[in-house]
Amino acid sequence: MGAQAHFLSAVSAGKRRRASRVVATDGRCVLVAMDHPAYMGTGVPAEAVEPIASAQPDAVLTTWHLARRYPETFARSGLVLRVDGGIADMGEPATDDASTLLYTAEQAMVLGADAIIVMAFSGAHDEHVSLSRLAHLSAECEKIGMVLIAESIPGGWAHEVPWTVTSVARGARIATELGADMIKTMCPGPTDEFTEVVEACGVPVVALGGPRMDHEDDVIEMASGVVAAGAAGVAIGRNVWGSQDPKNMVTRLMQAVHGL
Amino acid sequence: MGAQAHFLSAVSAGKRRRASRVVATDGRCVLVAMDHPAYMGTGVPAEAVEPIASAQPDAVLTTWHLARRYPETFARSGLVLRVDGGIADMGEPATDDASTLLYTAEQAMVLGADAIIVMAFSGAHDEHVSLSRLAHLSAECEKIGMVLIAESIPGGWAHEVPWTVTSVARGARIATELGADMIKTMCPGPTDEFTEVVEACGVPVVALGGPRMDHEDDVIEMASGVVAAGAAGVAIGRNVWGSQDPKNMVTRLMQAVHGL
Amino acid sequence: MGAQAHFLSAVSAGKRRRASRVVATDGRCVLVAMDHPAYMGTGVPAEAVEPIASAQPDAVLTTWHLARRYPETFARSGLVLRVDGGIADMGEPATDDASTLLYTAEQAMVLGADAIIVMAFSGAHDEHVSLSRLAHLSAECEKIGMVLIAESIPGGWAHEVPWTVTSVARGARIATELGADMIKTMCPGPTDEFTEVVEACGVPVVALGGPRMDHEDDVIEMASGVVAAGAAGVAIGRNVWGSQDPKNMVTRLMQAVHGL
Amino acid sequence: MGAQAHFLSAVSAGKRRRASRVVATDGRCVLVAMDHPAYMGTGVPAEAVEPIASAQPDAVLTTWHLARRYPETFARSGLVLRVDGGIADMGEPATDDASTLLYTAEQAMVLGADAIIVMAFSGAHDEHVSLSRLAHLSAECEKIGMVLIAESIPGGWAHEVPWTVTSVARGARIATELGADMIKTMCPGPTDEFTEVVEACGVPVVALGGPRMDHEDDVIEMASGVVAAGAAGVAIGRNVWGSQDPKNMVTRLMQAVHGL
Amino acid sequence: MGAQAHFLSAVSAGKRRRASRVVATDGRCVLVAMDHPAYMGTGVPAEAVEPIASAQPDAVLTTWHLARRYPETFARSGLVLRVDGGIADMGEPATDDASTLLYTAEQAMVLGADAIIVMAFSGAHDEHVSLSRLAHLSAECEKIGMVLIAESIPGGWAHEVPWTVTSVARGARIATELGADMIKTMCPGPTDEFTEVVEACGVPVVALGGPRMDHEDDVIEMASGVVAAGAAGVAIGRNVWGSQDPKNMVTRLMQAVHGL
Repeated sequence: MGAQAHFLSAVSAGKRRRASRVVATDGRCVLVAMDHPAYMGTGVPAEAVEPIASAQPDAVLTTWHLARRYPETFARSGLVLRVDGGIADMGEPATDDASTLLYTAEQAMVLGADAIIVMAFSGAHDEHVSLSRLAHLSAECEKIGMVLIAESIPGGWAHEVPWTVTSVARGARIATELGADMIKTMCPGPTDEFTEVVEACGVPVVALGGPRMDHEDDVIEMASGVVAAGAAGVAIGRNVWGSQDPKNMVTRLMQAVHGL
Repeated sequence: MGAQAHFLSAVSAGKRRRASRVVATDGRCVLVAMDHPAYMGTGVPAEAVEPIASAQPDAVLTTWHLARRYPETFARSGLVLRVDGGIADMGEPATDDASTLLYTAEQAMVLGADAIIVMAFSGAHDEHVSLSRLAHLSAECEKIGMVLIAESIPGGWAHEVPWTVTSVARGARIATELGADMIKTMCPGPTDEFTEVVEACGVPVVALGGPRMDHEDDVIEMASGVVAAGAAGVAIGRNVWGSQDPKNMVTRLMQAVHGL
Repeated sequence: MGAQAHFLSAVSAGKRRRASRVVATDGRCVLVAMDHPAYMGTGVPAEAVEPIASAQPDAVLTTWHLARRYPETFARSGLVLRVDGGIADMGEPATDDASTLLYTAEQAMVLGADAIIVMAFSGAHDEHVSLSRLAHLSAECEKIGMVLIAESIPGGWAHEVPWTVTSVARGARIATELGADMIKTMCPGPTDEFTEVVEACGVPVVALGGPRMDHEDDVIEMASGVVAAGAAGVAIGRNVWGSQDPKNMVTRLMQAVHGL
Repeated sequence: MGAQAHFLSAVSAGKRRRASRVVATDGRCVLVAMDHPAYMGTGVPAEAVEPIASAQPDAVLTTWHLARRYPETFARSGLVLRVDGGIADMGEPATDDASTLLYTAEQAMVLGADAIIVMAFSGAHDEHVSLSRLAHLSAECEKIGMVLIAESIPGGWAHEVPWTVTSVARGARIATELGADMIKTMCPGPTDEFTEVVEACGVPVVALGGPRMDHEDDVIEMASGVVAAGAAGVAIGRNVWGSQDPKNMVTRLMQAVHGL
Repeated sequence: MGAQAHFLSAVSAGKRRRASRVVATDGRCVLVAMDHPAYMGTGVPAEAVEPIASAQPDAVLTTWHLARRYPETFARSGLVLRVDGGIADMGEPATDDASTLLYTAEQAMVLGADAIIVMAFSGAHDEHVSLSRLAHLSAECEKIGMVLIAESIPGGWAHEVPWTVTSVARGARIATELGADMIKTMCPGPTDEFTEVVEACGVPVVALGGPRMDHEDDVIEMASGVVAAGAAGVAIGRNVWGSQDPKNMVTRLMQAVHGL
């Protein structure tokens, strides 16, 4: 640590406090994603909210409404707010990136968010829309010490770029260089290859869970695998709240990720 | 109620005071819609205003002008201001969502509004226009405790998405998750199926009345039906002010909704 | 819960999340005060910081510098920032209240504070200085959902008003009515009389520890006593960091206050 | 020096201080470009960063992330921040200029940047996009004394204009006239012809290195050549960090450019 | 280094870059004070400026005018700007603290300053004036990553508090706790006692030189002494620019402080 380590920063201290609510002291994180209702119009069932919270995942990813609806319920988990969107999974799927920033970093902080998350579609034909959104937001977050997570989907949901370890690593690195503090992205192949993604970007990476898997053991195995490969953890939504026993799934994920 | 219940909020208190002027103590609401003149150029006849007000509906939905024209007349009902618009029902109908926000939440508060209302067109080809408008407005409203009502029309007025209980429930849920405090939407089928919509979003829902019905009894029956299904009430415009006896229609709606 | 309970507020949700980091789920709180260096020029020894933090008190009360210096150290405790001051315990003591607000509620939030604290000197000859400071700050805090704690000292440090249960209860009530979310004040007599103070204000009250006591058991007894009388807990500084074993003192206080 | 020389400017003084960290007292500059990860998703390997910095190039050109990641590492070199981008080298290459400004001049200054750099594509079919971006940014930079470097690529990367000494000189001159303080551009022919480019614009010019050359001696020779032709120096990326011995390459470039 | 170390901050990075221009990599600093002309109307002779700069002290402390007058001259030293003042050493000396902030942190940054300095008079009868000025400025500096130095004079220039190691340590600690990044204060007794001051505040401390000493060797001895006692270095004005050979004095101080 150099001579400049004595020169402290309040903004940095605030960011670290907030980060400590999302990532545990072992540097790992189980993030339960519950932002689906904002674009799917459905998702986490109301009766699953308390069980999920009671298992105390490191953090939850919610919509604006869920965050204002359950302040005490989620008080023991970090709060990550989805701030882009404005599109619905109804009618014809959009061919362009029509999302916008819905809430500012300041509004998220007032709401009690510890981090905010936005999409990054490197390689999509209109990648500049999400990438500049990410960069602008990054600079806003830096001013107030808000933690910024990028959800990197190379080529967008339309798979304009094949999902390989190389493309995923590049997408993650680009999002990092533009200012993301943490990356949520897919593990496109065997989990041991995920190391390439983790090493590419140099900030904490969580692997996303994606669609409902057939066997819950596969979810746990994926979580263990990516953590063994160096990931900070996982961001699981449908495979938690779609489970028969959401609380148990969170508990198992916490064990797998934190090696308990 | 948890340990945090002692930590009160002035903004929240203000929002609840305003909400209590729109929704009665039984949690129900008859909202008389009179915002049509702003885009139809016609609508509630001048001679119907006093009779409607005299029946003291829970709330009235007005244009900017009606709100400034009748402050005392509507003093016994909650005031909901339509804040999007800027389009007219003349010439060729627009194929895209060309509405904009006409007034801010602050301006509405100065005018005396207890709530404001905007459209949400999930599933329309340009859904992002109305959905991001709703989300941005939601964050503005939260700052000052203004109640925000979303009028959710899946697929927009052009029916780009079929109106089914499922699509209506999803549209309502999306609007809720983006920050609406209350939903106004259609009841697309038998009223007993409306429960699916109500349960989907978890905030008060009022069913809209739509075009003039042939029999006034049908309007009352619809109101009774959606309330039985869990709705907070109804938002009726043409079927009130287009009636031979608007005051009587309001009285009958109040009885149907509040179960008097 | 009334019909308005569905009308949620993001600001309120944020305040509750922050409050949940200061007050535990049992509604109780051990606050370790470490703001003395900002006006005494001395106080918590550097070597006591880690031991205190490792015992995980519910919250710590720090200066601006300590908050930016130890973000990870204090990550498991709520952070309360002293925001008034600008006076030093050197030279002639000031006869008037010369303190000012040093930091805004927004700056405190960026730094990661969950609550802020200011003095309230009801009954002092220049009480208007601190009381208007408190009220102005309260309104600022409400806008962003920051928790505000008032340290109520009737008659100020010069004892212009005798410290009795009645005067302490009145001072606490005045601070509450002006907008404080929580009160820190002295227990002026037998702890069982502290109920009068607690009931007077209706928001959580923590009893302050004051100067170093001769026996550490007396501190623990006071803590148990005020909690038995209804207090939310205690705010102890010198009797923790001045102890031979600060970590043990925090642990004992946590047991006494939370009844473990 | 005329009578007006006594009329000093704080903004001008600040710009000169910042410029003195990018260009040495001999008016020359070795700039190591490391901004590739932001659009290539790869680039300077993590293990090359310290060796490059240890050779103390006059300045480094970095992404936002590298600047915040290595403040002390790069403390002895000037810091140039790439502020345009938002595009990725994945999927189909864009046919239009889709870059945007990602960070403002003020944000760059807070981060510690001494200069910022943007592209200028004179002669491209949508040249107005980058040229107006440059001019607008120039006026922003002037207000705060930030040094602005234009990277002039006549006709853009698609070579819509042939790269000749004449086109390069014209592109450089245009960027200068719109407000750039320094130019980074290619040397399109024999290095002794580069004088035409240097003389055309009248502000310091650095020649860019471009793709990896077969022999490192060719890079050094190019550097010596353009400096002999009047250039301020070179901006080399891949030929430094792609080298077997990046530190040695920087040292050789420093010798070639500063004539040590 | 904890799990949060991956969460970087641009503001912090900028502050560290700026700090690295004031304090050398060995954590030490020779600061040549030249701000006297702003209040004495005299001070550093014009002919001493270049000699002082040519010896490349770690940093110089200047007025607004000197900073804009000599940007290149001082380019190799860090620039510390005096931002409080507005009083003159003419006529009757003021009995109260009549200084104000003359320039904002932002203006200082535009001018090219790496740090700014203000007075802190703990123990003076109107200490709150300078202490609240310091705290307010601290919060402003934190937002943009400007380094803040407090010049702590216990009891003010009128010695309202005796200058002892204890009072100096307390004054330094108070200034630190309110947000100063570095302290300039006097060494009131034997230099080996200065350790108490250094250890009290935990941020870098430089000892001020004060009035012209009879023997230049005494200045050097003081510098060596305080550094041996743990100080980061010295801030010397009159004993440098009042010297027969200012350049030599800077060279000797650099040797004494950096142990060359």
